Amino acid sequence: MTLSPAHSGLWFQEFHTPWDLYGHGVTHVLAHCQTPFQEAYIVETGAYGKGLILDGHWQSTVGDEFLYHEPLVHTPCVLHGSPRRVLILGGGEGATLREVLRWRTVETVVMVDIDGAVVDLCQTHLAEMHQHSWDDRRVQLVIADAQDYLAELRRTQQTWDVIISDLTDPVVDGPVAPLFTQEHFQQIAQALNPGGFYMMQGGSLNPPELAMHTQIVKTVATAFAAVQTCFCYAPTYGVALGLILASQSPWNACPNPATIDALLATQTTGNLRMFDGISLLGILNVPKHIRGKG
Amino acid sequence: MTLSPAHSGLWFQEFHTPWDLYGHGVTHVLAHCQTPFQEAYIVETGAYGKGLILDGHWQSTVGDEFLYHEPLVHTPCVLHGSPRRVLILGGGEGATLREVLRWRTVETVVMVDIDGAVVDLCQTHLAEMHQHSWDDRRVQLVIADAQDYLAELRRTQQTWDVIISDLTDPVVDGPVAPLFTQEHFQQIAQALNPGGFYMMQGGSLNPPELAMHTQIVKTVATAFAAVQTCFCYAPTYGVALGLILASQSPWNACPNPATIDALLATQTTGNLRMFDGISLLGILNVPKHIRGKG
Amino acid sequence: MTLSPAHSGLWFQEFHTPWDLYGHGVTHVLAHCQTPFQEAYIVETGAYGKGLILDGHWQSTVGDEFLYHEPLVHTPCVLHGSPRRVLILGGGEGATLREVLRWRTVETVVMVDIDGAVVDLCQTHLAEMHQHSWDDRRVQLVIADAQDYLAELRRTQQTWDVIISDLTDPVVDGPVAPLFTQEHFQQIAQALNPGGFYMMQGGSLNPPELAMHTQIVKTVATAFAAVQTCFCYAPTYGVALGLILASQSPWNACPNPATIDALLATQTTGNLRMFDGISLLGILNVPKHIRGKG
Amino acid sequence: MTLSPAHSGLWFQEFHTPWDLYGHGVTHVLAHCQTPFQEAYIVETGAYGKGLILDGHWQSTVGDEFLYHEPLVHTPCVLHGSPRRVLILGGGEGATLREVLRWRTVETVVMVDIDGAVVDLCQTHLAEMHQHSWDDRRVQLVIADAQDYLAELRRTQQTWDVIISDLTDPVVDGPVAPLFTQEHFQQIAQALNPGGFYMMQGGSLNPPELAMHTQIVKTVATAFAAVQTCFCYAPTYGVALGLILASQSPWNACPNPATIDALLATQTTGNLRMFDGISLLGILNVPKHIRGKG
Repeated sequence: MTLSPAHSGLWFQEFHTPWDLYGHGVTHVLAHCQTPFQEAYIVETGAYGKGLILDGHWQSTVGDEFLYHEPLVHTPCVLHGSPRRVLILGGGEGATLREVLRWRTVETVVMVDIDGAVVDLCQTHLAEMHQHSWDDRRVQLVIADAQDYLAELRRTQQTWDVIISDLTDPVVDGPVAPLFTQEHFQQIAQALNPGGFYMMQGGSLNPPELAMHTQIVKTVATAFAAVQTCFCYAPTYGVALGLILASQSPWNACPNPATIDALLATQTTGNLRMFDGISLLGILNVPKHIRGKG
Repeated sequence: MTLSPAHSGLWFQEFHTPWDLYGHGVTHVLAHCQTPFQEAYIVETGAYGKGLILDGHWQSTVGDEFLYHEPLVHTPCVLHGSPRRVLILGGGEGATLREVLRWRTVETVVMVDIDGAVVDLCQTHLAEMHQHSWDDRRVQLVIADAQDYLAELRRTQQTWDVIISDLTDPVVDGPVAPLFTQEHFQQIAQALNPGGFYMMQGGSLNPPELAMHTQIVKTVATAFAAVQTCFCYAPTYGVALGLILASQSPWNACPNPATIDALLATQTTGNLRMFDGISLLGILNVPKHIRGKG
Repeated sequence: MTLSPAHSGLWFQEFHTPWDLYGHGVTHVLAHCQTPFQEAYIVETGAYGKGLILDGHWQSTVGDEFLYHEPLVHTPCVLHGSPRRVLILGGGEGATLREVLRWRTVETVVMVDIDGAVVDLCQTHLAEMHQHSWDDRRVQLVIADAQDYLAELRRTQQTWDVIISDLTDPVVDGPVAPLFTQEHFQQIAQALNPGGFYMMQGGSLNPPELAMHTQIVKTVATAFAAVQTCFCYAPTYGVALGLILASQSPWNACPNPATIDALLATQTTGNLRMFDGISLLGILNVPKHIRGKG
Repeated sequence: MTLSPAHSGLWFQEFHTPWDLYGHGVTHVLAHCQTPFQEAYIVETGAYGKGLILDGHWQSTVGDEFLYHEPLVHTPCVLHGSPRRVLILGGGEGATLREVLRWRTVETVVMVDIDGAVVDLCQTHLAEMHQHSWDDRRVQLVIADAQDYLAELRRTQQTWDVIISDLTDPVVDGPVAPLFTQEHFQQIAQALNPGGFYMMQGGSLNPPELAMHTQIVKTVATAFAAVQTCFCYAPTYGVALGLILASQSPWNACPNPATIDALLATQTTGNLRMFDGISLLGILNVPKHIRGKG
């Protein structure tokens, strides 16, 4: 009757369907708070290191966040080629910001997150992720509702080369539903410079849940001339995620890997862990049943 | 206190690490037996339909098996171009066989499975998967140990265009360990015709478990001039799987999708669900950290 | 990363509240069927041997069923002293019947179960529980709805010394709700001989669930002059159960243990595992907060 | 696909055997620390309110701790009749102390806990349990190893009317094993006044785990003339607990409930929730299979 101590203890369980659950053993609870917007945990897991949970959903863990943040950021940035102005909606952990700042061409990054308490929590506990990116002089942090900020942009006529939505899972009702409407995506489209790219986290690609992703892709397509699903799999989530890439002009989904690698070598700093020219082909070329639904 | 009936009941849980578990709610147990080799369950799940479990590990479910069996079979077959003789090691469900039989060029398929009781169970309960493929006149089913069969092949000098290992997860000790040795892969290599391809299920790609996959890739590389990891994600498993592709000559990892689609259109029958020329690019072009380990 | 095989595999989980679950590892599924009335499983558990599950609720396991069936049967029987005619409502496993048959005084036992398929299943798979009690010439098995049978009793004017309700958990709505109404308990009361006793399984005594038990006790009290909760704890259930004892005359809740033991020695056969004069004091004398609610 | 938020989230799971687990949904983590001796969590559960977990084992929750602390304290105290000096070993939550202080006859209570950090944590977070009992002038808190304190007692010749061991589960190896040896129980026996009583938490009574309890009872019996198991069931633990009561003279296991109630009315303050003369009969009169093993 010798049991591994790993089995008795705290487990964080997430149900993807009523019959499918994914659980991670939690070895320490580093922080827990109820903000005005959501319930946040920062925990240490047994296998994936520290991680952030918002309202019962994993946002990322240190052990595999590169599998999410690198494709989320570098896919639109390499397709653009020389992004100067980047807008991030959400992204509380600071890891999306960290990846954007690798681009030497970037002059201004604005990160808009509704929940300052979550950003504070991540700044205190998740240095492995943010790597103090907020200290970079190119960064402006705005604590605001994304919708309000987009309205303000329109008034001030600021526009962007790349906009990245690093928000919680898409839904069709509830308080964040306005962020998944035609109106919202049109505002995004209007805030992009010519040649600009939009990239958003677009929910689970698992067959029983694919319909929600498909619906969001269709909604994005009402505001952009070209849209596609990109593939992302970080095991923390327990599902494959569809990242939705959009622009007003089509792009080459089979760019030459050597060309991409050369671009990254000259335009970015530091070492990417999963992303390069070959990876990009995998990200852009998703299975037929996912495209067919788009 | 109203609970969904889905939550109380049978769950099949699989631990990937001591701190990571994936559970599927089971709505019916269709069959359960202890064979001379392993314990087998055929169950109905709440979200993925019927599935086969061997010794506590999911082999496949009706709801997403196409995400595993299509890349497993069609990747080596399209790279070969016109496979006539195909050998399958394992593959008790009959779904690998079903995919091989789509190829009009195929004249002979031998499927070698050690466990006749599991094959019987699948024949009785998993018609959705095998679609009566064993009735095809091109098929020969051999109930034997894969090692013994390979030794026999050597004696009879039979060779193959494509060999597919659809076995349980690779391990470095225990009874199936001989199937993951240099000697085994050399036997496979010797049983291939010139221009032949080998494809095997090569275990989890999740970061905490990647070392095992990497070790197998290195072992395969001792017997083949060219080896690479292909990407497979079927949510039933709770992990991404690395499929290991090997041959004695290199192949083009960026074939033109239209060319592939044309080949499939002329050489195969029926409708593929996930595989086509674009999907193949995604399968062949895996993230950098996975290749770097190979 | 060595995991006990006990952890990966089938688990049967029961939620008692939305935040409290009890899970038993299942090592074999012996039978599974959907009857016209309910879904039944007979499984082998890792720690408690074989067990019966109906509609997602444990009914009993070989490893601790004596902790339920002995107090359920012998408490009313010893208080009566010499039961000749006993009626069992439910009790598909046959273990309640087995305990009743220990009484030498018993001349007739009628067991009424609505679900003949469950009785068949138990006869085939749970000999450890029923010990072929149905073969005893004193037994009559009636496959019928308990309500219909009680109506029939009234017509034929049959009456009983002891009536035992060994049914699934009490509920206040749904198809079995009529078995927990004033009308039902009045029918029971009318079917008892003078000096007769009624005993029923009355649901969880755990604090968050106690209100349901209390409500049933109050309903029983509308039909009987004396009612009390008896204590039962069999770990399979994950909760303590309240057994509800009722009669038209009060009884001594502190009988002399030696007197009870002498009665059992002369009137019953075989060896009881948990029940005797001392145990009876524990069964009849429940904590204050449970009585206070009655 | 609407899931109760209760199901996704943190769960605290405890395995009682490798095939039996009990899980409580955790709605908030109030505190978590690694002390020099153990890992401590104070959490809010969905159904049982706040609770303390040490090294992966539930110690108590607000929702049912009365079912453990009342029998633990009042059983030896009423059998003694007028305890003046009481020693508590362990009892970090302060709830055992709270119950002892109800006795008007008590002049001195010493509580010895090895882990000052756990006591601090409980003082900060579990006022519902301790009700500021440490402020009572009769209380002395000693942060020390129980073995060292007992050795010191021997030197100073202090003795006690009642000694209560409110420690973690008994084990036969590891660092706390010395607290479950003959030598330890002899030291306890020597520290009791004539007519004194010892009460200890003695582990699970569930059939698969009963052997450990039985072994401890036998060891206690080497140091005391009279020993018995008392019954305790608080659902938080997922098992029934055996409390071990010991003294040098036998006691009446069937005291008159009215006499006990009169004693409690004159000698104690406040309102007990589960304990009274009738409850005591239930506590002292345990099932035959548990006694038979003693």
